[in-house]
Amino acid sequence: MHISLDALRRIVGSSNVLTGEDVSARQADWMTGAACRAGAIVRPADTDELSRVMQACHAARQPVVTHGGLTGLVHGGDAQPDELVVSLERMTAIEALDEVGCTLTVQAGAPLQRVQEAAVEAGLQFPLDLGARGSCTIGGNIATNAGGIRVIRYGMMRQQVLGLEAVLADGTVISSLNRMLKNNAGFDLKQLFIGSEGTLGIVTRAVLRLQPPTPDEQTALVACPSFDALTGLLAHMSKSLGGSLGAFEVMWQNHYRLLTETSGRHTPPIAVEHPFYVIVASLGSEAERHGEQFNHALETALERELIVDAVVAHSQTQRDALWAIREDIEGLIQTLAPLFTFDVSLPIAAMSAYTGQLERAVERCWPQGRLVVFGHLGDGNLHISVSVGSADPDTRHAVERLVYEPLAELGGSVSAEHGIGTEKRPWLGISRSAEEIRLMHTLKHALDPLGLLNRHKVLGHGSTTTSTGN
Amino acid sequence: MHISLDALRRIVGSSNVLTGEDVSARQADWMTGAACRAGAIVRPADTDELSRVMQACHAARQPVVTHGGLTGLVHGGDAQPDELVVSLERMTAIEALDEVGCTLTVQAGAPLQRVQEAAVEAGLQFPLDLGARGSCTIGGNIATNAGGIRVIRYGMMRQQVLGLEAVLADGTVISSLNRMLKNNAGFDLKQLFIGSEGTLGIVTRAVLRLQPPTPDEQTALVACPSFDALTGLLAHMSKSLGGSLGAFEVMWQNHYRLLTETSGRHTPPIAVEHPFYVIVASLGSEAERHGEQFNHALETALERELIVDAVVAHSQTQRDALWAIREDIEGLIQTLAPLFTFDVSLPIAAMSAYTGQLERAVERCWPQGRLVVFGHLGDGNLHISVSVGSADPDTRHAVERLVYEPLAELGGSVSAEHGIGTEKRPWLGISRSAEEIRLMHTLKHALDPLGLLNRHKVLGHGSTTTSTGN
Repeated sequence: MHISLDALRRIVGSSNVLTGEDVSARQADWMTGAACRAGAIVRPADTDELSRVMQACHAARQPVVTHGGLTGLVHGGDAQPDELVVSLERMTAIEALDEVGCTLTVQAGAPLQRVQEAAVEAGLQFPLDLGARGSCTIGGNIATNAGGIRVIRYGMMRQQVLGLEAVLADGTVISSLNRMLKNNAGFDLKQLFIGSEGTLGIVTRAVLRLQPPTPDEQTALVACPSFDALTGLLAHMSKSLGGSLGAFEVMWQNHYRLLTETSGRHTPPIAVEHPFYVIVASLGSEAERHGEQFNHALETALERELIVDAVVAHSQTQRDALWAIREDIEGLIQTLAPLFTFDVSLPIAAMSAYTGQLERAVERCWPQGRLVVFGHLGDGNLHISVSVGSADPDTRHAVERLVYEPLAELGGSVSAEHGIGTEKRPWLGISRSAEEIRLMHTLKHALDPLGLLNRHKVLGHGSTTTSTGN
Repeated sequence: MHISLDALRRIVGSSNVLTGEDVSARQADWMTGAACRAGAIVRPADTDELSRVMQACHAARQPVVTHGGLTGLVHGGDAQPDELVVSLERMTAIEALDEVGCTLTVQAGAPLQRVQEAAVEAGLQFPLDLGARGSCTIGGNIATNAGGIRVIRYGMMRQQVLGLEAVLADGTVISSLNRMLKNNAGFDLKQLFIGSEGTLGIVTRAVLRLQPPTPDEQTALVACPSFDALTGLLAHMSKSLGGSLGAFEVMWQNHYRLLTETSGRHTPPIAVEHPFYVIVASLGSEAERHGEQFNHALETALERELIVDAVVAHSQTQRDALWAIREDIEGLIQTLAPLFTFDVSLPIAAMSAYTGQLERAVERCWPQGRLVVFGHLGDGNLHISVSVGSADPDTRHAVERLVYEPLAELGGSVSAEHGIGTEKRPWLGISRSAEEIRLMHTLKHALDPLGLLNRHKVLGHGSTTTSTGN
C-alpha cells in the first residue's frame, strides 16, 4: 500500500477504513470463495468523499480495485495486497424517481432488486434482470454492461442508462446525469464508463430509464425439430408478437436431458427426444388479447412445423416450473462437476455448426467428456458447460482453446455478457484486433495515465497484446 | 491546402480528386445553400483507399472535413479553403444482409432509404426514420446519432448500430464489425464514433440491427385539455399498448393553429381550441387485435378525460393527412420567416413551465414575436420556432439566450438530435460541465492529436471553454 491509511481516515472516518481481519473475513470472489487480499477497504459515503479518496490515491500512486456486489464471474473483484479496495456499499440511495419522465436516479451501490422494486412501486418497471439481482449493484451492472434474459426486448444495461456520474483516477467528477432519451450535446461520455469494468472511472450515480409495466406474461416451453426450425421460430414469434417478445431461451437437448431425465431434478414437461427446447415468453399489457395473440402465434408455429410440441404455462407456478429447468445452474454444477463454463456470442446462423464441431472436438480429446449448451438465442449468446473429468489449469487451457479459437473466424466474442476481468484477458485477441486493443490502451492511458484503476482487469499493464492465450 | 493533390490522385485516381468549379458547384450546407469552399474533394472507393488518404493527410498535417448526405442542420459540412473534404459518395454498397441474425452490413455512404428498402425486401425493417431519408447517409446518421420520430420505440441511431468500422486521423482502421446483440469483450469502441460528428474518426462501414416488421399502423390525432392530461396520456398509452407505442408527437396549440387555421394549409381535423394536440401511433403485427387494442386505449383515455377529442385514421391517406400537419416544415418557414428554429431537450415534467416562460420572454422583448412548439414529447425533445421579424446575428444571439439559458438549470440539452456542429458550439457549456468538456478534449487529443478531423466542429480548437455564448 502506497497511501497512508490516516489520510483515508481523515476523508471517510475511521470506521470506514477496514484493515486486517475486517478485510480478510470478506469474500472477494463469488466463484472461488477466496478471501479478500486487499491492503485495505475504504467505504466513501458519497461522490465527494470518493473524489477526495481518489485525489489522495492519485497523489500517492495508490492502485485501486472497485467493489460492487461481487457477483461477477470473471474475477473482477480480485485485489492484491498492495491494492486498495473502494467499496460502494454505503452509496445505496435511490435519490429520485420521475414518474412523468420515467427515470430513476440512484447511487451506484444500490442493489438491482431495490431499483426494480422502486420502479414497481411507481407503477413502472426496470427491465434488466439477472439471477444475482439481490446482491449485484447498479454500479456493477453498469461497469460490466450486464445482460440477462430480457435483452432481446429491452437491450443490455447500456440501453437502460440515460445519465451517469463517475469519478476519474485523479478524483475529477464527471457528472453527466442526463434524464432525456435524446441528448446530442457533444460526446456521449457515459458510454466510456459502461462496460469498461471500472478501468476508466468509478461509477457513482446513474439516471436509469424505466419502462411501462407488462403485467401479463405468457410463457411456453416448446420443442423444435431442427436448428432451422429454431431460427424460423425466432423470426416467426418476433413478427407475430409485435413488440412483446420478452425471452427466447434455448436449451440444446444435452442440457434439457441432463436436468430432467439424467439428473431426475425436474419432470420433463415435453418428451426428451427433440434436438432443441425453447422457453418463449411474451410480455404484454392485458391478459385477454395478449393471451389470444400468443396462442395464435404458437398454433401457427405448429402448423408450419417450426415446433413439434408445446406446453403453455397457465399460472405463475407453472411458469416457475418451466424456468426452473433453464435456470438450474446448481443442477448443472452438481451433475457435471468438475466443469468449465463459458459465455460466448456468435452470429446465430453459425451456432449449429459451431456447437456440433465443438462437441466432436471435446469427444476427440476426452472420450468421456460432456458438452451442455443453453443460451439466449436471439442475442447470439450461448452458455456452454464442458465437463472432462478434470479442472487443472492445463485442462482448462485446452478446453478454452477448443471453445474460443473457432470464434475468431466466425466474428464471435469470448465474452457475451460476463466481461473480461482477469479470466478472459488472455483471450481478448480472439475477438478484438490488434488495432482495437491498441485503441483501448490509448483510452486507458488518456483517462488513467498512472494505471491506478482495476489495473489487472480487461487490458492489464503494458502495451498491445495480440496473444491468443498461450 | 497542405497536401499535394497528386499524392491523393495516386491513391484514388484523378477523377476522384475534385477541384475548382467541381468543388464550388456543390452545395455544402442544406440550410444556407452556401457553396462548398473546400480546397478539394477526395472520393475514396473503399476503406483501404480512405485509410491511405488519411495516412497521407496525417503526414502532411492536412485538415479534413467529412461529407455524407449534407442534410445536417448545424453546419457540420462547412469546410474552409485550407481543408480537404472526404466524401463517402462512392462507398454506398449494402454488403450483407443476415436474415437469421437480423443484421445488415453497409458502407457508410449508403443513403438511409436504401437501407430501409433492403430491410423491407428481406421481410424486416430498419426503424430509424427521418424526413431526409432519401439523401442522408448511414455514416452521417451514425456520426450525428440521428433521432427522428420512432425513438420512443426503437431508440436513436446508437441503438441500431451493432458494429462499426472507422478510420482514425492517422489512417488506422478500427474494425469492430460485431454482429451480435451481446458482446462484452473489452471496451465498446464503436460508441466513440457514434454521435461525435466525425471529430474522432471517419465511419466507413456499419453492422445495423434490423427489426421484425410492424405491418399494421394505427394512428390518431387527439386533443388534450392540459399538460397534465398530456403526460397522463403518454403514460396511459405506453402502458395500454404494451410494447407497440411507435410515436407520440405533440403540437402545442400555437403550432397546430398556425398550420391549419392561420395559414389555411391544412383543414383542422379537430377544432382549434385545445391547448395540445398529439399524433399517437402504434405499430403492430396484425390489424384486428391491434386495432381493437388501440381503440380500447383511446376510449379509456376519453373516459379518464386525458383527451377531449380524437380522430382515428382509417386509411393511409388519412394517416398521411394527419402527419402532413406535423411535418409541414415548409409551411412553418413560409408563415413565420424570418425565423429561428431550435432543437432542445429537457425533462418532460419541466416542459410546460419552460415553454410558458419562454413565450412570455419573447413577448416581452418583441411584442410582435411568435413562438411555435412541437416535438417528440416522450423523448423530452421540443422543436421550437421563434419569429421576431428579423434574422440578424444580434437578434439571433438574443433569441438563443432566451431559449438556451433556462436549460442550464433544468438539466436540459441545447441539442436533442441535431448535434453541435459549429452552430451550437458556443452554447455547449449550457448543457455540459467544464469537467465534461475537458474530458471531451482529452478524448479528442488522444484520438486525433494533430486536430485534423472536423477541427471546427463540436469542440473547436484549443482547450476547455465554459463560454455561455458570449
